[in-house]
Amino acid sequence: MAKPLILVTNDDGITAPGIQALISFASEIGDVFVVAPDSPQSGMGHAITINSTLHATKINTLDENGVKTAYSCSGTPADCVKIGLQELLDKKPDIVLSGINHGSNSSINVIYSGTMSAAIEAGIEGVPAIGFSLCDFTWKADFSQAKIFIQKIINQALENGIPNGVVLNVNIPKLSSDEIKGIKVCRQARANWKEKFDKRKSPMGKDYYWLTGEFDLLDNGEDTDEWALAEGYISVVPTQFDLTAHHAIQNINTWQLK
Amino acid sequence: MAKPLILVTNDDGITAPGIQALISFASEIGDVFVVAPDSPQSGMGHAITINSTLHATKINTLDENGVKTAYSCSGTPADCVKIGLQELLDKKPDIVLSGINHGSNSSINVIYSGTMSAAIEAGIEGVPAIGFSLCDFTWKADFSQAKIFIQKIINQALENGIPNGVVLNVNIPKLSSDEIKGIKVCRQARANWKEKFDKRKSPMGKDYYWLTGEFDLLDNGEDTDEWALAEGYISVVPTQFDLTAHHAIQNINTWQLK
Repeated sequence: MAKPLILVTNDDGITAPGIQALISFASEIGDVFVVAPDSPQSGMGHAITINSTLHATKINTLDENGVKTAYSCSGTPADCVKIGLQELLDKKPDIVLSGINHGSNSSINVIYSGTMSAAIEAGIEGVPAIGFSLCDFTWKADFSQAKIFIQKIINQALENGIPNGVVLNVNIPKLSSDEIKGIKVCRQARANWKEKFDKRKSPMGKDYYWLTGEFDLLDNGEDTDEWALAEGYISVVPTQFDLTAHHAIQNINTWQLK
Repeated sequence: MAKPLILVTNDDGITAPGIQALISFASEIGDVFVVAPDSPQSGMGHAITINSTLHATKINTLDENGVKTAYSCSGTPADCVKIGLQELLDKKPDIVLSGINHGSNSSINVIYSGTMSAAIEAGIEGVPAIGFSLCDFTWKADFSQAKIFIQKIINQALENGIPNGVVLNVNIPKLSSDEIKGIKVCRQARANWKEKFDKRKSPMGKDYYWLTGEFDLLDNGEDTDEWALAEGYISVVPTQFDLTAHHAIQNINTWQLK
């Protein structure tokens, strides 16, 4: 059987240790083709580049991992997937992998996540996709502990297929592989960020702000990604891009809109 | 009864005719407070500014519309809502309105939409919110035809309340008010964009790309926003930010993940 073709991208940029780890894990499973941002794109959500030009530069520094081809792209994670699928790859990949993100994309973070926007873009284009994130935002995070779990999830996705219209949001606790208790399929926990704007004055006397905040979990369910991670499990949330709140249609239909 | 406090934002920037129209329509309903991007942010998805500073500048040019306060913000639409709610407003608004966007945000466009990211951000923070878009991307689009419908939707949302965890994605066909057949509550149509990358060479001989594409509707349902718009109705899609594909959890639980 032919080896699967795997497109790898991320949002921390092509030089991040997290994508290097994912390339190395994926290379043991299939042929890896990389299209990743040339600079960090964290917090970019599902941004795409429509008002400026895109560049994609072929690079060769990743060949030691068994990578066939790697491109560094000037765009966002969603741009990387679009240009990878439509322009740079000769055939449709069997799966798109995004990450490993340096930091959590669990719960409401999925909305702001460049890592997950790449996976969602692939899903929209009909390609199975998984986003991986490690709950450790440091550059020197130890991705090796997650290897066997990540490879298991990729292999199972290739074997079983991911349902249409769904991509996987995988978050990994910051634990050694011995300490990780297993893998749980979860729902997205309800939460938001309590923003704090750090207001400062520029040397010219003009106010400016840094956005900071604290994560505020609003959900005590034992079926959520936050619960699984706190208990030492890897969380897998099947994530969709049909945003319709089907349960609310009946309610809004009672409004006087005639 | 006190007039409702209405926060207005958009993604085309504070100078766009679409937001000027929305400010004018909303001023007849409540007290309007504006925080909008200082430059166009189309296609920004749910991007937020975490690696650079944010500026918010008080401006007075909007006072003729009855606007109490307006700020021009250097950030994305989601940033505008965050800084508006947490830093610039003294109290929680009764509703957040985003738009009127110059161009459609129906179907899969919701994922890429800065207009809807502002509404979703408000929803995440527990404030009722509606994004409005007119299916006419030109700068000189005629927003006045939609006035009575937009005011009806705002008034009904204020009166009935929008269900928790839901924001409204309202799209308006490019028709006169006489031609508009009414308002339909819909689901998001399945669709994607068939990208075409327009590849060019720079004066320095380097390849670069412009992202273009064609909308590809994959859904014949008569309960979708695309169907409603094509038939001459305004579409209202209740939109959620819990992205969990609940129906897929059982399927993924059959995988060998132990």
